[in-house]
Order: sequence, then structure tokens, then C-alpha cells
Amino acid sequence: MSTLKGACIIGQSGGPTSVINASAYGAVKAALDNPNITRVLGSLNGIVGILNDNIIDFGQEDKEQIELMKNTPSSILGSCRYKLASPDVDDTDYRKILETFKKYDIKYFFYIGGNDSMDTCNKISKFMLQNGYECRVMGIPKTIDNDLFGTDHCPGFASAAKYIATSLTEVYFDARVYDIGAITIVEAMGRNAGWLTASAALAANKGMGPDLIYLPEVAFDIDNFIESVKKVYEKENKCIVVVSEGIKDKDGKLISEYANANKAKDSFGHAQLGGLAAYLEGVISNAIPAKVRAIELSLLQRCAAHCASKTDIDESVMAGKTAVMEATSGTTDKMVGFEREYVDGKYTCKIKLLDLSSVANTEKKVPREWINEEGNGLKQEFIDYVSPLILGETDLVKEDGLPKFAKLKKVRA
Amino acid sequence: MSTLKGACIIGQSGGPTSVINASAYGAVKAALDNPNITRVLGSLNGIVGILNDNIIDFGQEDKEQIELMKNTPSSILGSCRYKLASPDVDDTDYRKILETFKKYDIKYFFYIGGNDSMDTCNKISKFMLQNGYECRVMGIPKTIDNDLFGTDHCPGFASAAKYIATSLTEVYFDARVYDIGAITIVEAMGRNAGWLTASAALAANKGMGPDLIYLPEVAFDIDNFIESVKKVYEKENKCIVVVSEGIKDKDGKLISEYANANKAKDSFGHAQLGGLAAYLEGVISNAIPAKVRAIELSLLQRCAAHCASKTDIDESVMAGKTAVMEATSGTTDKMVGFEREYVDGKYTCKIKLLDLSSVANTEKKVPREWINEEGNGLKQEFIDYVSPLILGETDLVKEDGLPKFAKLKKVRA
Repeated sequence: MSTLKGACIIGQSGGPTSVINASAYGAVKAALDNPNITRVLGSLNGIVGILNDNIIDFGQEDKEQIELMKNTPSSILGSCRYKLASPDVDDTDYRKILETFKKYDIKYFFYIGGNDSMDTCNKISKFMLQNGYECRVMGIPKTIDNDLFGTDHCPGFASAAKYIATSLTEVYFDARVYDIGAITIVEAMGRNAGWLTASAALAANKGMGPDLIYLPEVAFDIDNFIESVKKVYEKENKCIVVVSEGIKDKDGKLISEYANANKAKDSFGHAQLGGLAAYLEGVISNAIPAKVRAIELSLLQRCAAHCASKTDIDESVMAGKTAVMEATSGTTDKMVGFEREYVDGKYTCKIKLLDLSSVANTEKKVPREWINEEGNGLKQEFIDYVSPLILGETDLVKEDGLPKFAKLKKVRA
Repeated sequence: MSTLKGACIIGQSGGPTSVINASAYGAVKAALDNPNITRVLGSLNGIVGILNDNIIDFGQEDKEQIELMKNTPSSILGSCRYKLASPDVDDTDYRKILETFKKYDIKYFFYIGGNDSMDTCNKISKFMLQNGYECRVMGIPKTIDNDLFGTDHCPGFASAAKYIATSLTEVYFDARVYDIGAITIVEAMGRNAGWLTASAALAANKGMGPDLIYLPEVAFDIDNFIESVKKVYEKENKCIVVVSEGIKDKDGKLISEYANANKAKDSFGHAQLGGLAAYLEGVISNAIPAKVRAIELSLLQRCAAHCASKTDIDESVMAGKTAVMEATSGTTDKMVGFEREYVDGKYTCKIKLLDLSSVANTEKKVPREWINEEGNGLKQEFIDYVSPLILGETDLVKEDGLPKFAKLKKVRA
């Protein structure tokens, strides 16, 4: 494979995670050290930064701040939900991107994101090829939803899972402190895939977690739900439930839509969710004479860097580094993926490369056989899957008792 | 002072905190080691356990589990909100308590709690004295609200404060990731005293926190609130607000009651549930064309042991130990309080003893002069006050990547 010399640009897209900056850190560090990369650029707010020529130069940043990126939550370059049109329909954006690539001599494009971002990568790569511009494009996975196809798991998932399992363990202790009955309903993120909500089972597995867990993978029936809660409550005088924001009835209608019929849609056409826990709190209050409390984990679950998994951080850094190493060695149009291996019974994570086209717009869900028959709990298979991913504690730098996060100067290129 | 030999009983009351078990740990450890204490008992669900003879023997617990108590959140003995009548009106409960004390030869009563618990201690102590039963009663402070009179601060506050400041720092990064405008409204606990909500100012003080903070100490005006949010939003395209659940209008009416009045009915004819933050989300959504998100920290803020302050844990243990040491040395009818001293500019915490009668039913609020003139932020005086309290990280034991919390056998005495 021929040597390709030029600048690289790194972008971040989609919802934030605790470790998306760890991947950026891995890529920036590897790129700064690579002789074939002449300049390390960052695109502000994902692809929008390239479209609007809003580009920073990582070479101008302080080393200390780059180091802090490893443990800083959210997307330090900013994110976007902008969806490129199909180039067959309208190639305006693609021509702008090509223009920017030419302007900065960008030969490498590293994009950290989820399904939609891999689709973006794929389209850009094809357009460049069709227009005779040599450029290597690599996707770096990122999603707390863990729903990317072809990879064993996704950077960002495990840290959010660790936070949810930790918080549910703590809520378990809190919610049963009084001698009166109490029902607690916790809402976790997850539109179509229940991986994150399912991670609450790690707490249940230790005997200190939720009694019932509902995922979008299984049709949600309100009457069954009430009966299950009643059964636990009558026995224990307490009941803790965790639900995915995206649970749906047998006709595929979101339960959150029962309360909010006309919800705004985001620019990808996803219904904006929220308020499900409060709705179910009402449902249970109506059916069972008990103190009911709704807790929505909201943004907290995806940005809790103080509770990140070391395994997740390390793997995220590795994903970023690998993308740079692979691209400079000749690889293009791939997403960095993970494969697990057990060496002497010990979990290890190996890299595999996936075709961007195979990843884009495909969702991986929790296998039905990992969910119990009643559809309200997880089986050992899921516990075995997720347990190694949450191991290890973050080495987050603290200052005055609070996390010290990176602040970039963001000098324009 | 005469030597008093007999059993001791420890109880916990009021809302849970991350460190109320650290105080219990301190008391249990000191009591188990004390030659004048013949047996170390625990009352399940606060004073209710003594009333119902629901009492456990700490001597039967495994040492490892007692050690784990130091970092286990919530009240391991269970709690209650039971309020004793005035003995002049009805002394039934007091006679039952006396009976239980006699049955187990209880000579020492250690009660960990807030305002109401100190009142309970005080009443029990007086009743015992009037009935010629020698018994020493000590209160150990506990409240995330930090509103106990006479003590510089209260065990439990700093850990909740650290969690809030940490989470707000993380939310700061998450809430400004997109290139579109966003307003985030976070609701923290605090009915009458704003200490906990104010602690979000620690994040703001680092330039990574909320823009506006509203406490119950200052009358809340909705029009001013909208104007202030608008001003920040127009300048920054983002705005993060933190409000105390207990903010009130100039007539003393809770703003959350405005929410109740405006509640929509769901399909069951029930009022749609949702707290103050959700109400203010509606207020702002109506006034400002922006994406608005409400986050309620809920139980998470008071049980987040994984984010506890080492200073708080150490001081809580010390408070428990001191209560035992003082009582066995002859002290009674006191609450353990804290006084801060600066030795060579370094914060240290000294113990002082306060009359139970002086503490009971008095609330300490955030001084008005520590709040800015507009009533929407904190001054340096507050930062200086709270900063040393959140220092240091918990040494929580982890198992499989999750906190390992205590589980007591609770063998009945």
C-alpha cells in the first residue's frame, strides 16, 4: 500500500459518552506521533465543522490538556445531529467537504460516532473516491446504546453500564430504608436496544438491585407490568423497576407516547423521548396503594466520567489509536470493532475491522434468549457478557475534590 | 463522674445519607472496644425498633461487614419518620422505651439523625431522668440539608455536595455539546435550607458549572427567573440552572405548588406527576424558543456513596466514636457538633458538644450575605466554606467493578 502523507481530521458525532474523548485522545496522540500525518486537525461539531470550515489545530493545544481529554466526558470537539443527504439527491455538502479537505490537505478522516456517523463516513468515502480525491476514512465506534452491528461491544457503553449498576445498587439501599412500602421506577436510556437498561441486572445479580427490568426488545404490556410489580410488592413491601425509555407495546407504539401523543421529532426522525418513568409512576399509583417514586437517569448516565470503567477507557483509547495506525498503513472504509477472547478464562479485547457499509444503519439488540421468559429480567448470559466490561476504576485527575477536565484552546487551523 | 456499665443501643433516623453508616460504624467500633459497654445493640427503623422490640446485636455481626458499613450508603439499620408525642400529652411511647431499656439493660442511647431526631433524644432523656432511670443520651448529627443549628456543618452534607458539584460539572460538558441552543434545569434537594443546591456553585466556581442557582433563602420570582435565563441564553446559547426543591415565592408559597395547580390529567384521570424542574421546564419552554431539559437529582444525590467525600466519611466516623467516648466518660444530653479551625491556613475539624435542647427544631440557613444580590448565585464566602469539606476520595471497596456494601445478618438481640 502506498504511503499517503497529509493532514488528518478528527470529528465526534451523536450523543456524548464518558469516553468519546478517550477515543479522540487515542487518535490525537497516535496522529501527533505519526510521520505520515503532517497536521492533526479537529472538526468542531462533527461534520458541521468541516462544512463550515470550523476547524481547530491540535498541534496548538497544551500537552496537559490533551492528557486530560482521556477522562473528560462529552464530546470535547462538540457534536451534531446533522444528517448528510444522499449524494445522488444533493451533493452540495459533499462538494463542500471535498473543498475543505483540499484546503487543508486532509488525507485522513477519523469520525467517532454511532450508526448514523458510520453512514456519514461511508458516504463521504465513496464521494471522495468517485471524485478522484485520495483519502482514507476510518470510523471509531461510540455509543452508550451498544447497538452497533458487528462489534462485540461499543466504547461508551460499559461506563454508562457501570454508572447505572452502581447507582441502582445505591438506590436499592436508599429505597428500602423506611419501614413503609415503596415502589421505585427508574428510567434509563435506550430507544431500540436495551443494553444499557439491562446493565442494571449487574446490581440485581449481587442481590442489591432492581426486581424488574423492561427492555425495548420485549413487547411491554401494562397489565402484566402492574401484576408483576404487585407480586413483588406484596412479598417484599418494596419494588424497584428499571425501564428503557424505548419500551413499546405489542403494536410497536412507544409507552411514552401513551402520555405524550404528539412529540417533536429530532432531525433524524427519532421521536424525542422522556417522561416515561413519571407516566408509569402514575399507572402504578393508580393500581397499587403505595408510595411510588420515579427517577429519570437523564444526562447523568451518559456523562458520569467520575464512574467510568477503566476497561472502557483503555479500549476507547485503543480504538482511536488503532484507527490512525490502520489508516496510515493503508486501511480505509473500515470501522474499528472489538472481538472478545478468553485467554485462560480471562477476558481480553481484540481489534477487528468492519466494513463501514456493513455497520451503517444496522442495530444490534439484546438477544431474546438472554432475557428471561417473562420479559422482566436478564439471564446469566447477559451478566457474563457485560461483567468484564465494567472492570477497573477511572484514574481521573481530581483538583480540589472535583474532577479536572480538559479545556482546549481551540485555535483555528 | 460515676462509671456506668450496661448495653448501648444505636439508632438511625430521617432521610438516608452516604455517610450515616460511617457514623454508626464509628459508634459500633468504639462501643465494641469499650469496657463499660456490655453489649452493642441496634434499633431497627429508628425509634420504632425500640418501641416494637425490634433490636439486633452487633456482637453477632461479621467483622468484615462492620468494616464495610463505613462506606455503605443509606441507613443500614433502617429509618423512620415517626415523631414521638410530647410526653405531657401521651407518654405511652416513652413508657415502652423505658421498658425496652430496662429489658436489655440499656444505659447508652446513640441516635443519628437531624432536627427531629435531636428532639426525640431530648424528650427521651428527660423522661428517663424524671423516671429515675440512669441513662446517657447522645445525638450524632446527620443531614444532607446541613441545616442543624450550632454545628459548623453536618455529616452527610459534604458527600451530597461533592456529588452535586461533580454531576453538575459533567452535565456542563454534556449540555453544551450540540451546536444548537439548550437550557438545562436541575432540581436538587433542600426544602428550607439551600446548602445542598448552593454546592453546585463549586462547579460554577471552576468555570464548568451552572449559570444560575436559586435557593429557598431568597424569594423566587418567575418573571425575574425567565429574564435571567433569557439573558444568559442570549449571550451563551446555553444556560444551566439549579433550583432547590423548596424555592418559594414572596408570599412563601412553594413554586412546586404552582406545578400541582397546573398539572394535566392523564388517561386514568390522575394528575400527571412531575416535579418542580419539569414545571420550570414548561415555564421556560413557553417563554424562550429553545430546547429545554429538566433533570431531577432525586435519591441519587443522597445515596451516591461512590462519590462520597473522604473528609465527610472521616468526620462522620469521628462523630460516632466521640459520642461513645463522651457518653462513657459521663456526658449526656449533648449532640456532637463540629467547629472548623484553620491551622497554618489548613482546615481542621474540631469536636464541640451542643445541648440537645438548643439543636432540636432549629434550622440553619445559608446566610443572605453569602448569596449574590440578584439571588441567583453564591459568593466567595460560600465557596470558602464548602471547599474543604468535599476534599478526598472514598476508599470504598469494589468487587467486580461495583461497590461492595455491607449486609448485616441482623440477629435479634
